[in-house]
Amino acid sequence: VQQSQKDLAEDFLNLHKTPPLFVLANAWDVASARIFELAGFKAIGTTSAGIAATLGYPDGQKITVHETAEVIRRMARLVKLPISADIEAGYALTVEGVIESVRIVIEAGAVGINLEDSTGDSQQPLFDIEFQKEKITAIREMAQSPGIHLVINARTDAYMLSKDEETLRLSKAVERGNAYKDAGADCIFVPDLGDMTITSMKSLIDAIDAPINIIAGPNTPSVGELEEIGVRRVSLGPRHQRATFALLRRIAEEIMEKGTFTGLITEGFSYADVNRMFN
Amino acid sequence: VQQSQKDLAEDFLNLHKTPPLFVLANAWDVASARIFELAGFKAIGTTSAGIAATLGYPDGQKITVHETAEVIRRMARLVKLPISADIEAGYALTVEGVIESVRIVIEAGAVGINLEDSTGDSQQPLFDIEFQKEKITAIREMAQSPGIHLVINARTDAYMLSKDEETLRLSKAVERGNAYKDAGADCIFVPDLGDMTITSMKSLIDAIDAPINIIAGPNTPSVGELEEIGVRRVSLGPRHQRATFALLRRIAEEIMEKGTFTGLITEGFSYADVNRMFN
Repeated sequence: VQQSQKDLAEDFLNLHKTPPLFVLANAWDVASARIFELAGFKAIGTTSAGIAATLGYPDGQKITVHETAEVIRRMARLVKLPISADIEAGYALTVEGVIESVRIVIEAGAVGINLEDSTGDSQQPLFDIEFQKEKITAIREMAQSPGIHLVINARTDAYMLSKDEETLRLSKAVERGNAYKDAGADCIFVPDLGDMTITSMKSLIDAIDAPINIIAGPNTPSVGELEEIGVRRVSLGPRHQRATFALLRRIAEEIMEKGTFTGLITEGFSYADVNRMFN
Repeated sequence: VQQSQKDLAEDFLNLHKTPPLFVLANAWDVASARIFELAGFKAIGTTSAGIAATLGYPDGQKITVHETAEVIRRMARLVKLPISADIEAGYALTVEGVIESVRIVIEAGAVGINLEDSTGDSQQPLFDIEFQKEKITAIREMAQSPGIHLVINARTDAYMLSKDEETLRLSKAVERGNAYKDAGADCIFVPDLGDMTITSMKSLIDAIDAPINIIAGPNTPSVGELEEIGVRRVSLGPRHQRATFALLRRIAEEIMEKGTFTGLITEGFSYADVNRMFN
């Protein structure tokens, strides 16, 4: 690991420490990463769902860690921002396997990871809490050897996947969030929180003793409101990629149904502008 | 080469033979290819500029034929349509090198290619006409051995790159178009033709004795009008990708400037819808 990657890791960790909150732009290829970098974002995260779609797979650990690493390597060649790797549940069922996945993405240039606790099995949707803590502690230890403070964003799907009533779902997410923090996580990520009311969001944020990552949707309160209730990190997941899919579908339907091409308007984004993003 | 690929090659060739014209949707990853397939398009073409952008390179033979082949392979795993490979100028300066590139994309699943005559050198922007014919003839011969009729779309940049006055530019494009047809091309592609007046377009179409491919832009006449003047194939190039880049930039700017996320609207394109595209 080179000094520049160590510096990026430190910059990335610092973004979590104090307000203002920062928005991490998820990206699935170099173009999407560069567009957000040029717009002034401070960090890039991969989106597993987004990368899977570009490669032709559904979400949910169908891609390999090597495919994610390849995307990170290509991003890191041009992008000067910290890059966080979405490694889903670590692409392995053992602590050793998860650590190997983390090693691969650090080698590709990542300075942070997302690790989730969902198993993909509908009968038993979440990994045991102790096993998940063990993985987080082991990742923290391992990442000390390349000499970087890897930013561990521990995701719990306890709220999203639980069928219990609201209060119980929230308390399970709080329990796991605090446990993962104690095990060494730098930030706790609770998906679907961004779609909650601001009051529910605040009660969860207050109850977890760590920086909180939420994922934004079109109806999420503004950055100013989120900052006020203590959110530290907002990510976009694959939602903006879906917005581009919807646009492509609209262009396709216009051509098929009307035989016209007006959807091909690029708002001044020229061929030369695109090429310049990669020079 | 399997029978299914031979059949796709025949289907693809037939699309060029008789009206109605068909629109070839250019794609840069599996997601973009699948969106156009689901919308009812009849053929997919890669876009070199589009693939280059996803990988972090400017257009103009900075990517390798292997990177294009990798995208085609992933598309061909799911897409049931003919796939045409944009191989730029063949990624080689010799006939043998160009043939090797064609062999690689056929092996990946392509049943057609785009081969352009621009050199990338501003002093001498076009390959010698005889040399270009030699390449086309050699490709036609080579493609007989895997037993498919590879659809050769020969692109001439004589009109686009020439600094001469309009009539001379057009006559140079006509000369090259007819020469490439004689050498074995199935279709002639003249970029920027789609941005011409319908009268200029028609005079060029009438003068070239082959199916003509034009590239559409937001102001291109409708499919009905194009069909009437004899256009057989319309492609989109990377323009719809640029439309998605413009959308991403708008989303990024809204977040940076207003702190809101309303651009993340996906028009009903859900997470499940995306996953279903790849099952």
